[in-house]
Amino acid sequence: MCTKHKIGRTWEAFLVLLVYYTAWVSPFEFGFLVRPSGLLTITDNIVNAIFFVDIVLTFFVAYLDKTSYLIIDSKKEIATRYVTTWFLLDLISTIPSEFVRVILPNNLQSYGYVSMLRLWRLRRVSRFFARLEKDKNYSYFWTRCAKLVSVTLFVIHMAACIFYRLAAHYFNPTETWIGSVWEDFKTESLYSQYIKSLYWSITTMATVGYGDLHAVNPNEMTFDVMYMLFNLALTSYIIGNMTNLVVHAATRTRQFRDTIHAASSFAQRNRLPVRLQDQMIAHLTLKYRTDSEGLHQQEAIDSLPKAIRSSIANYLFYSLVDRVYLFRGVSNDLLFQLVSEMKAEYFPPKEDVILQNEAPTDMYFLVSGVVVVGEARTGDVVGEIGVLCYRPQLFTVRTKRLSQLLRLNRTAFLNLIQANVGDGTIIMNNVLQVARLDIFFFLVSF
Amino acid sequence: MCTKHKIGRTWEAFLVLLVYYTAWVSPFEFGFLVRPSGLLTITDNIVNAIFFVDIVLTFFVAYLDKTSYLIIDSKKEIATRYVTTWFLLDLISTIPSEFVRVILPNNLQSYGYVSMLRLWRLRRVSRFFARLEKDKNYSYFWTRCAKLVSVTLFVIHMAACIFYRLAAHYFNPTETWIGSVWEDFKTESLYSQYIKSLYWSITTMATVGYGDLHAVNPNEMTFDVMYMLFNLALTSYIIGNMTNLVVHAATRTRQFRDTIHAASSFAQRNRLPVRLQDQMIAHLTLKYRTDSEGLHQQEAIDSLPKAIRSSIANYLFYSLVDRVYLFRGVSNDLLFQLVSEMKAEYFPPKEDVILQNEAPTDMYFLVSGVVVVGEARTGDVVGEIGVLCYRPQLFTVRTKRLSQLLRLNRTAFLNLIQANVGDGTIIMNNVLQVARLDIFFFLVSF
Amino acid sequence: MCTKHKIGRTWEAFLVLLVYYTAWVSPFEFGFLVRPSGLLTITDNIVNAIFFVDIVLTFFVAYLDKTSYLIIDSKKEIATRYVTTWFLLDLISTIPSEFVRVILPNNLQSYGYVSMLRLWRLRRVSRFFARLEKDKNYSYFWTRCAKLVSVTLFVIHMAACIFYRLAAHYFNPTETWIGSVWEDFKTESLYSQYIKSLYWSITTMATVGYGDLHAVNPNEMTFDVMYMLFNLALTSYIIGNMTNLVVHAATRTRQFRDTIHAASSFAQRNRLPVRLQDQMIAHLTLKYRTDSEGLHQQEAIDSLPKAIRSSIANYLFYSLVDRVYLFRGVSNDLLFQLVSEMKAEYFPPKEDVILQNEAPTDMYFLVSGVVVVGEARTGDVVGEIGVLCYRPQLFTVRTKRLSQLLRLNRTAFLNLIQANVGDGTIIMNNVLQVARLDIFFFLVSF
Amino acid sequence: MCTKHKIGRTWEAFLVLLVYYTAWVSPFEFGFLVRPSGLLTITDNIVNAIFFVDIVLTFFVAYLDKTSYLIIDSKKEIATRYVTTWFLLDLISTIPSEFVRVILPNNLQSYGYVSMLRLWRLRRVSRFFARLEKDKNYSYFWTRCAKLVSVTLFVIHMAACIFYRLAAHYFNPTETWIGSVWEDFKTESLYSQYIKSLYWSITTMATVGYGDLHAVNPNEMTFDVMYMLFNLALTSYIIGNMTNLVVHAATRTRQFRDTIHAASSFAQRNRLPVRLQDQMIAHLTLKYRTDSEGLHQQEAIDSLPKAIRSSIANYLFYSLVDRVYLFRGVSNDLLFQLVSEMKAEYFPPKEDVILQNEAPTDMYFLVSGVVVVGEARTGDVVGEIGVLCYRPQLFTVRTKRLSQLLRLNRTAFLNLIQANVGDGTIIMNNVLQVARLDIFFFLVSF
Repeated sequence: MCTKHKIGRTWEAFLVLLVYYTAWVSPFEFGFLVRPSGLLTITDNIVNAIFFVDIVLTFFVAYLDKTSYLIIDSKKEIATRYVTTWFLLDLISTIPSEFVRVILPNNLQSYGYVSMLRLWRLRRVSRFFARLEKDKNYSYFWTRCAKLVSVTLFVIHMAACIFYRLAAHYFNPTETWIGSVWEDFKTESLYSQYIKSLYWSITTMATVGYGDLHAVNPNEMTFDVMYMLFNLALTSYIIGNMTNLVVHAATRTRQFRDTIHAASSFAQRNRLPVRLQDQMIAHLTLKYRTDSEGLHQQEAIDSLPKAIRSSIANYLFYSLVDRVYLFRGVSNDLLFQLVSEMKAEYFPPKEDVILQNEAPTDMYFLVSGVVVVGEARTGDVVGEIGVLCYRPQLFTVRTKRLSQLLRLNRTAFLNLIQANVGDGTIIMNNVLQVARLDIFFFLVSF
Repeated sequence: MCTKHKIGRTWEAFLVLLVYYTAWVSPFEFGFLVRPSGLLTITDNIVNAIFFVDIVLTFFVAYLDKTSYLIIDSKKEIATRYVTTWFLLDLISTIPSEFVRVILPNNLQSYGYVSMLRLWRLRRVSRFFARLEKDKNYSYFWTRCAKLVSVTLFVIHMAACIFYRLAAHYFNPTETWIGSVWEDFKTESLYSQYIKSLYWSITTMATVGYGDLHAVNPNEMTFDVMYMLFNLALTSYIIGNMTNLVVHAATRTRQFRDTIHAASSFAQRNRLPVRLQDQMIAHLTLKYRTDSEGLHQQEAIDSLPKAIRSSIANYLFYSLVDRVYLFRGVSNDLLFQLVSEMKAEYFPPKEDVILQNEAPTDMYFLVSGVVVVGEARTGDVVGEIGVLCYRPQLFTVRTKRLSQLLRLNRTAFLNLIQANVGDGTIIMNNVLQVARLDIFFFLVSF
Repeated sequence: MCTKHKIGRTWEAFLVLLVYYTAWVSPFEFGFLVRPSGLLTITDNIVNAIFFVDIVLTFFVAYLDKTSYLIIDSKKEIATRYVTTWFLLDLISTIPSEFVRVILPNNLQSYGYVSMLRLWRLRRVSRFFARLEKDKNYSYFWTRCAKLVSVTLFVIHMAACIFYRLAAHYFNPTETWIGSVWEDFKTESLYSQYIKSLYWSITTMATVGYGDLHAVNPNEMTFDVMYMLFNLALTSYIIGNMTNLVVHAATRTRQFRDTIHAASSFAQRNRLPVRLQDQMIAHLTLKYRTDSEGLHQQEAIDSLPKAIRSSIANYLFYSLVDRVYLFRGVSNDLLFQLVSEMKAEYFPPKEDVILQNEAPTDMYFLVSGVVVVGEARTGDVVGEIGVLCYRPQLFTVRTKRLSQLLRLNRTAFLNLIQANVGDGTIIMNNVLQVARLDIFFFLVSF
Repeated sequence: MCTKHKIGRTWEAFLVLLVYYTAWVSPFEFGFLVRPSGLLTITDNIVNAIFFVDIVLTFFVAYLDKTSYLIIDSKKEIATRYVTTWFLLDLISTIPSEFVRVILPNNLQSYGYVSMLRLWRLRRVSRFFARLEKDKNYSYFWTRCAKLVSVTLFVIHMAACIFYRLAAHYFNPTETWIGSVWEDFKTESLYSQYIKSLYWSITTMATVGYGDLHAVNPNEMTFDVMYMLFNLALTSYIIGNMTNLVVHAATRTRQFRDTIHAASSFAQRNRLPVRLQDQMIAHLTLKYRTDSEGLHQQEAIDSLPKAIRSSIANYLFYSLVDRVYLFRGVSNDLLFQLVSEMKAEYFPPKEDVILQNEAPTDMYFLVSGVVVVGEARTGDVVGEIGVLCYRPQLFTVRTKRLSQLLRLNRTAFLNLIQANVGDGTIIMNNVLQVARLDIFFFLVSF
């Protein structure tokens, strides 16, 4: 199933490459060539054949129904859906131009117009980019940029080809944008013709408008007017997209700066001691660094259903909490529920975790790092008893280097204990018996 | 009443069409014509007549008072309001130009100036777009685009007409923007004159400025200076609007990406098992797909008053909950209140709904889809008793395919039961008697 | 005090007008005039004199200290502050140019340079706009626009003057931007010279760049390079500001649309009955119309301290609630506290306020409009007793036309009653005695 | 350690200066010089030497590991990391060009290409700006602007050099952008050549495109096409950044305006008395002024861990609260915990703090300023007893001038008292004994 999926993706990407080829070659044939020529004809027909294969394949590929979110793999339904939508247009765009030139009357069989039908395939690119944008494996910024660059290059190329065709087909070659400057432009090399057309096209598109080349006859003026209007929209669209990307990219740094600035201006206005200021800045900076996705991480986790969140907490912290002396002998049920209520927090070096005299509202478990207890002695056990009897914190606790701690709220803890009276007694006994700290330092603050 | 309303809307849309005609023809007559000519005169007068009819109709149409939010249909009040505001200007803009040329002195009777009075009608378009923007039946994006395109085209057309008039009326025709290039421009066809004017106008507006055409005499320079300044503002306005639209359109995809990115980077940093990662991504993706309006849906529903929210919940879930075995024989009042407290949630296939050992906080009702209970036997009833006695979940519950579930919070449930003691006893009895699951699978988690 | 303040503001606005005069005249003298001429000299000196008066006045005007938020009116402190900051520059910019020409050596006494010193006054305009932006009596949109237009016009004018000066002072007049096109440009009228300079300046600024006029000698090229770089920044700044304004202006309509769209797509997906859909849309539309400042109103009120919020509620609703039969004989204290807890809500016509069977959580008081009780009879009193005994709502209540209601939460009500036992008894008696509705309809829902 | 850090920063800033020199000189040598010339060669080699020193130094400088957030100072790890990343490229970019010319074959030894290798150093600037952006000591606005200006200037300079090189190396000098206008351009001074190239470069970049200079041969056209495409992206990027900065800078003023506007339109719609309106506006204005970082300050403080927040409250308010008569003799523990629960609030002059009859929910302590109690007499003590017995406020309290008050919530206060019964009794006694107000006015509202 998964391999099928991968093959599908690769095939799609390969077709998009061919569409890029078509997007370049079709307008070029339309503008610069009068009849199919050697190599191009061959590649064109190969590409057409591949797209014909794709049409056939479409009849065998399941699709996702957008209203029921179900994968539809019934042959009949797939065929009905395809035939009633894009099948005909897809088919027409693969007809070989040699064939068209034979069956159509003379005045309609222009090589160029048949080529233009191939551009129908461009809709694949649009769909392709819409999918990439939502795919987390590709950068949003570069996907959007690639899309904009593709559109811009295609528009310039297209306009260049049309401009040249207009000049080449005008009755008076000297009254054209190119003929008025280089009279014998038709005898020049294809490369020279193309680069000149492209040069004028981009000069107009980028609104540089040197004026060395400019519309001369009414036909050119009419097309130029439409081209400039379209460019106005396209340029605005490009700028709008760029603004969107820049604002998005700058958001995180800006929020960090705003936070740091707010904190330090508060500190300065209130003349807080330097040590306190340093702690504030250090904590906010660490938060910015560890929380690699800014504000979104916590939100994303919180929006998951409770079962998944419990699984995550269980996976990350169960084995740690299981080894804490306080919970020795406690039932798995309670541990499972306790772990779901814990929050992981990072503290930079030399930051206070709990202050002496503070009201006991939270309990901390050290995951990694080193922590110093102000007056850590064997008497620490008293601290825990104090906790269970609601007494203010007896000593200040401070980190020595970068530490990760699990915070457990007093209220949540007590609620769970109340619902598991037996386990509560075990915990109390653990507190009373133990006279030393466990391998995992247990910081009691509540 | 509703038919009246529809006719009113159609009439208004029809008038806006005529305004578009006026917006094109008035500057054109101002710039290119010296006297009324055949066909144009006839259509002009027909359009004027229709607008005159509209003036008369306005006296009979009720309006919405903006301070009291009441519909005013008193003839007198309607008349007073109209006469004291736009009546006179509306009337002047419908006077036939033939009539004006007869009554006014020679030097003021220029055909063009009378035409320009018609532009007063443009205010209708502005009002029309303001209404469309707030109408949910029209796309905001395309309404704004249509507005910007209309404004841009009108400005270009207007400037083209003024540029031509400046050249045509200048004492020395060879010292004009057009005369310095084509000396005999006045003998050319109207189409050729118009397309050249339009070409210069858009060349300047789009800031391409080829330079093949440029202001020559001081009058043209003065107008051109003002035109360029105006364009600077217009271009900024267009770009500002486009940015607004692009940012708006991109918001949803970007939020989805940010969420997925945050979740998966969290998973990778903490080396969560693949199965858990997949569950996270699958859930967030489903949420994005089903919640078709992104964040706004829940907000919009929550901002409705309680009575409406209750009606919705009642309409959607009452018949379902009514059939659940747990509530057999329970009073309608309680069911009604229970249903108001339920939240609908979607779960993708193979996602855990409830974990074994989890604390019982919620109860789930299956609306659609298939769900697998870890150790589902007839003994399931024990689970429900456990619930009512506050015991941890006995087995893990997992979806088999896309499922919709109703979540009922334990606290809300107990509060309602307490206020309806009789119903509480019935529910308890139901739990005790039933030895098999009902048609609608009843998942107990709390 | 307040009159003083008004005079101060008028004086300031008058000075800003004079600064606008200076901003136009100083570069003009710098660019186009070689020596002071008749009328301009006189007005210049008058303006200088007025600014000198302002310097003197500054010594007598109290100012607001930015760190202590105190008004400082000690003469000495005012003088110290002014002399140590802008005094000298202010003074220099008022020295008459005739005087400077006499005292300075020949090569420095150029008329133009002295004029440029006056531009120091521009800082007043910046301060002026910063103040206007924060003044609620002026539209933010138009203030920002006026600021941008002022800056743009000044830059164009300034560049035009410098361009002309560069050309006029160049050793070879035919090798200048203007001389290469019109050889005898120095003999033309001042108006013609000025309009040509302005035309080139704006052509460059707006990036139109026709090319009929362009830099010719290295001096001009150097200045042009700097001018174009500056314009790049200025144009970006203008577009950035315009985007800011457009996004701000569009926010409210967009939020309304998003909300309506979310609600109606929810309704359609769940196939809600039409009547329910209409109620949803009607309620959201009314909310958008009455809440004239969008989301900000509630936020702004909530951010005020409790005393102010109580004052507002008291002013708006006390007299109404005082007349409700339920609170007859109740103490002022309780009424005062009840009123602080009430929220005003608007309901469109034909909307359900309370549903039959709904859980009693809120009580409603009708401020204006008409409301229909489903089965309204004298038996309504039973409803209120049900309320106080916590019974579900006995009948549906629906609005007949636009109504304003006060909502009082059940919990808040009961908390206040508990703290005022005597008043609670009075309310109970009122409920029991009254057999008809009061002048103000009393809707009980809780 | 800290000194080391400072030296490191200074050294880095010095290197960035040298990079700026390189960024200017490398393209210049590439475009305009054929062989190393006197002074430039010497400075080039000095700069190369300094960068070589930096390569050596890099082996001795510890770095921050991005995954573990640890400082790595092991020589071996530093060397491994550097050699496997940028070492080789850094080394190549310091090789003296004289040396390259000797060892390389003739056709590759062009002076210019070797110079271009130096541009590898530009990556330092990008890193430098990324760091500055996050440094609170530098303005975000100006850092971003400096970055954009640097990029723009570099691009223009680079393009100018390439344009000149293209013209200088073309086989037919008269068919180049510069040679078609000034035939003998190669004999002109270096300054004249450079300013002309720069002039054309910026004319194209800013999309002015006068057309006096334009691409003539296909090579130039090809480069120009690419340059214009790049500029399209660069311009969009500049505008996007500017919009980002403008929107950010305008946010605070706009929020203030929206708030004020919402409040005053609410007041006007409900016809609130003028005194109430003034109080509302005065309060919101003061809030805007004192809260110098807008919304972020409170958020930033709230996101700090509890220990830091307690330290701040303790530092700011402990000594004040310690002196309040109510807490005389109370334990340090309780005071410490009380202070953590207090919120500082500013009140403008003549604003009501507590209203008569208001429900007692908060208690206020005056930090600075003057406050007037409506009927302040020695009987005030009764007020406090009322508080502890939950009685409505007996008199209105109003500020006389700008005051800072500490607010303590009733519920938080009572919770703390309950947990410290002994202290509760002391407080009660204090209330009963004291017959006069303390040095610090004690406002009781709860």
